[in-house]
Amino acid sequence: MKKRKKRRKVYLDNTPLDEAIDNFFNVLEEIGKDSLPSETVKTEDALHRITREPIFAKTSSPHYHASAMDGVAVKSQSTHRASLRNPKVLSIPEQAEIVDTGAPLPEDKDAVIMIEDVDWAGKKEIEIVEPAAPWQHVRTIGEDLVATELIVPAGQKLKPVDIGAILAGGITEVSVEPKPKVSVVPTGTELVEPGSDLEPGDIVEFNSHVLCGLISEWGGTPFRENKLDDDYEQIADTVRNLTSKQDLVVVNAGSSAGSHDYTYQVIKDLGEVICHGVAIKPGKPVILGIVDKTPVIGIPGYPVSATLTMELFVKPILYYWQNRKPYISKQIRANMSRRVVSSFNAQEYLRVKVGKVGDNFVATPLGRGAGMIMSLVKADGVTVIPQMREGIEKGEEVEVDLYRPKNEIESTVVGIGSHDISLDILSNELHKHFPPYSLSSAHVGSMGGIMALKREEAHIAGVHLLDSETGEYNKPHIEKYLKEEDVVLVNLAYREQGLIVSKGNPKNITGLHDIVRDDVSFVNRQKGAGTRILLDYKLKELGINSENILGYDREEVNHLSVAAAVNGNTADCGLGIRAAAEALDLEFVPVAKERYDLAIPRKYWEWDGIQYILQVIRSEGFKNSIDELSGYDLSSSGQILH
Amino acid sequence: MKKRKKRRKVYLDNTPLDEAIDNFFNVLEEIGKDSLPSETVKTEDALHRITREPIFAKTSSPHYHASAMDGVAVKSQSTHRASLRNPKVLSIPEQAEIVDTGAPLPEDKDAVIMIEDVDWAGKKEIEIVEPAAPWQHVRTIGEDLVATELIVPAGQKLKPVDIGAILAGGITEVSVEPKPKVSVVPTGTELVEPGSDLEPGDIVEFNSHVLCGLISEWGGTPFRENKLDDDYEQIADTVRNLTSKQDLVVVNAGSSAGSHDYTYQVIKDLGEVICHGVAIKPGKPVILGIVDKTPVIGIPGYPVSATLTMELFVKPILYYWQNRKPYISKQIRANMSRRVVSSFNAQEYLRVKVGKVGDNFVATPLGRGAGMIMSLVKADGVTVIPQMREGIEKGEEVEVDLYRPKNEIESTVVGIGSHDISLDILSNELHKHFPPYSLSSAHVGSMGGIMALKREEAHIAGVHLLDSETGEYNKPHIEKYLKEEDVVLVNLAYREQGLIVSKGNPKNITGLHDIVRDDVSFVNRQKGAGTRILLDYKLKELGINSENILGYDREEVNHLSVAAAVNGNTADCGLGIRAAAEALDLEFVPVAKERYDLAIPRKYWEWDGIQYILQVIRSEGFKNSIDELSGYDLSSSGQILH
Repeated sequence: MKKRKKRRKVYLDNTPLDEAIDNFFNVLEEIGKDSLPSETVKTEDALHRITREPIFAKTSSPHYHASAMDGVAVKSQSTHRASLRNPKVLSIPEQAEIVDTGAPLPEDKDAVIMIEDVDWAGKKEIEIVEPAAPWQHVRTIGEDLVATELIVPAGQKLKPVDIGAILAGGITEVSVEPKPKVSVVPTGTELVEPGSDLEPGDIVEFNSHVLCGLISEWGGTPFRENKLDDDYEQIADTVRNLTSKQDLVVVNAGSSAGSHDYTYQVIKDLGEVICHGVAIKPGKPVILGIVDKTPVIGIPGYPVSATLTMELFVKPILYYWQNRKPYISKQIRANMSRRVVSSFNAQEYLRVKVGKVGDNFVATPLGRGAGMIMSLVKADGVTVIPQMREGIEKGEEVEVDLYRPKNEIESTVVGIGSHDISLDILSNELHKHFPPYSLSSAHVGSMGGIMALKREEAHIAGVHLLDSETGEYNKPHIEKYLKEEDVVLVNLAYREQGLIVSKGNPKNITGLHDIVRDDVSFVNRQKGAGTRILLDYKLKELGINSENILGYDREEVNHLSVAAAVNGNTADCGLGIRAAAEALDLEFVPVAKERYDLAIPRKYWEWDGIQYILQVIRSEGFKNSIDELSGYDLSSSGQILH
Repeated sequence: MKKRKKRRKVYLDNTPLDEAIDNFFNVLEEIGKDSLPSETVKTEDALHRITREPIFAKTSSPHYHASAMDGVAVKSQSTHRASLRNPKVLSIPEQAEIVDTGAPLPEDKDAVIMIEDVDWAGKKEIEIVEPAAPWQHVRTIGEDLVATELIVPAGQKLKPVDIGAILAGGITEVSVEPKPKVSVVPTGTELVEPGSDLEPGDIVEFNSHVLCGLISEWGGTPFRENKLDDDYEQIADTVRNLTSKQDLVVVNAGSSAGSHDYTYQVIKDLGEVICHGVAIKPGKPVILGIVDKTPVIGIPGYPVSATLTMELFVKPILYYWQNRKPYISKQIRANMSRRVVSSFNAQEYLRVKVGKVGDNFVATPLGRGAGMIMSLVKADGVTVIPQMREGIEKGEEVEVDLYRPKNEIESTVVGIGSHDISLDILSNELHKHFPPYSLSSAHVGSMGGIMALKREEAHIAGVHLLDSETGEYNKPHIEKYLKEEDVVLVNLAYREQGLIVSKGNPKNITGLHDIVRDDVSFVNRQKGAGTRILLDYKLKELGINSENILGYDREEVNHLSVAAAVNGNTADCGLGIRAAAEALDLEFVPVAKERYDLAIPRKYWEWDGIQYILQVIRSEGFKNSIDELSGYDLSSSGQILH
């Protein structure tokens, strides 16, 4: 091993997270950047701003004695002993003055009689039949708000009614927390604007929009700067210029130690690097630095790393400057639905889907790649695997910080099982017609779905399992693996399975017999997937030995990834549904027609979430959407088959 | 009674709420205003907009096979059997090509070896000691997102990461729910702009700012129009003009049937009135109408009525147009802390403070006047008393729709008892230093506070109760009325009580002996208030009969309202603390010095909320703030006295 030489030194620290944050905040304090001045805004423009100071009323409301009704103002003494038997006659305007709601009470009057209770004795006289109590139907000075009274405390996010009360209290300007100015600098020669024609190697620059969105959600004012090439001078000029006018500068990316990564060098040359490399996963190559007394943060390029490091380093600074103390408002305990292995060297932030099945919350890990932005879109929350731990066991209880309200989580129908495109449509229709209900689907194959039902980790499982002995779908497997459970099978659709091949079918693949050819590479589905079972059943029928299939061991977890592999020319064919082939404009060689059902344990049957799912499946809207896809037969759709 | 004549007919319907809403929505459907067209916006501008259609990916991400690491791209076959003993040498660039993270994989390569694992055998050769598996460290096409895959469903409020994923999927424009255009027209000759010098009868026009804030929170685009006088022509011209260009017009107010109320007549003359008067309280005089196929809603003028009718009539329309289905996300069951009497004729919306004391939520009704905007600022939620019910009993369980997150409610220290200005400061400091903790105070006097502790409706009670036999403060009352409870008494302050009199003391009041004078009117505190007990104790000492005091029966519930009564000249004097007198720039005649303590049952003592309160009381910041007020002695502040 001795003689191994490295071309480039990859110098990244592995500073523990807390230490990195502490060091950075200490430096901010040293250079006087631990606070920002408050901002003064007109009260009417202060909606949703956060007060820095408590606000006390300057004037009372009402600021005069006001009639609370349309009526006549009187002196209560002059109405003493009025009764039906002995009505009192009062002269207008000396003894009784007509007032509208909100009008000031005349100086010598102290009560109002409602107009409905007044009889007209003549043009200039009224008659009353009941005495008026002092101050009746009068809003006295300060009834609502007394000058000097506290209207809202410091640190309050102003609601519409708060704005009203502050104006009522005579305060036309308020001192609020600033909206820190943050520049986001996208760097990378390979970056192109969204909507450009894409060449291999081009990367769509969307990170800056995500980062700017986060900054504005955290109370900052984001500035998206022009994209820079990987060019030391360009980046240095921009950072120098921005640090002279912004509160914080975020450079994305070039934060690692590759040959085109200049962020570290720029910060080092212009100022000081506090930390480069933190023991977190993803997000390790973050840079915390100071230039011209302004914090500059190098954020890694992969979207998941980028959002996580923003959350860990940028959010606390913005909150600190606004005197907002972040606290975890939505944390739950959930059981992990499968084992997760993690690195000993870093604190890992694992994105999870969460559902409530029976009485328990269940967390299912999502894709862990730092480049998987869809794992962020799909995530319900995040759980942290501490440094010095090697992972989380299946069933282990973890704490999850939720991204969504708990009631939405509780209204999520958890689907685990085989993937079908119609599930996306089902999910969409459910959410549209029955919010807050939604359907989450994890794609682990039909057998995976059945096992999830058994472990009470899902409400429904999408299954298309051929029994190789009887040729019957689903029922035999359910009866075998879910013996103790009373399960309902609802048909979603019949669908065509076949070989997905490239446009024009260049290798002339006409059926399963072709997949053993030497010049044909195959992409398979994972063990337990209905499609895999179908393949094995058909191979057996045809007497084909799977060892002779090139790529039999390469597994993808859903139809679309199989089609994507064919589309990307990493395989010549794969078994999947017609809709997947058509979605990517590929060709399709039919092999079989199969039944795709939803398996639903009886114990969840009455729950609204399930009932809404059934309503959607049986609706015209859903059927019309599926009809637009190819290869589906909906004649039994929504029928209970078991 | 027969001969009674009415000067004005007050014609308001009393339509049940559901009927009014149904009728109005039916008309909207008839005229084709039950939906609005969607809006197309650039994806990068779509943050927090709501999707109208599901969004499917147009391009895959990655859209090419990309290196996931800095390293060398190789053909995996060419690395077979490489080991430490038998390193393989590969030539550059034929067999091994250097690639950066994100770079496209060369056409003839199918794996990447990390740069750290590569040894340099020469300038043009590398040596590897391990085979590379096919597709290792490669992000294959569509790994993150496959073209045609669902990115977000319809009806989703787009988060920052959603924007990123949509851009990654090649979608640069999205179809979103519109932001309905709503004009708010303030009317009323008596209205003046905030900040104006106020004459009696002037009303600060703040409602329109509240209404516009609500509209924008509900997804609309508010337009605040110029204020109009109570003038039929002005209002008619404006409504005619606005209905031709806006989606909805809100006229505030003039919606009742008074002599200056023109909204009804204008809508009737220009279009159609669907309903005038709904059986709700507050908010009865609402008008639902249509002009030029555009809904026009007359909203009552009192702020509480205005926000409630906005919530009941405007919010559903805006949500409907945006295909948002409102659902109650935060509802709890709480016990009402006191009896509330309600009208049989209307559905009443009662604003409440909510706290969690022990295991139960407790709801305390707030001021019910339609003009009390502070009741909205202070409210934690609202409960509905149905029509045909006469009220809610004390202790009865009610459903409360929360305005604040439940965890904030659970972090609220419920204080019920005597009012002191220092409690406002305590509340402010607690919220500032220990969010989400806050202190809510209901002012019902010292005895009311003790009773609230007894009924487990509060965590703390502010008390200053003089025992007339022993002259000792607080302890005797606690021991008498909270026998079963172990209670801690913590001193908040010693404070001066005295007579609050007008500036310059025009009636020359020099002590309690003067309050029996014929030319002096008094304003008292309610029974059970510590100040009332002190007064009665002192009167007894002086041998004064309370029947001889003019205004002894007029009760206010806190010091500031007593001071406000004096300031408003509805009374010549009242007993209260020096700070209240100074707050309103009144004069003060000292009568006694008294001890003000917080009574805290031992069972709440360990709870964080209480511990934080104690920390604040003992902090310098709190003491400094109190020192700025007059009449406080803080020498024992924070000490445990019992």
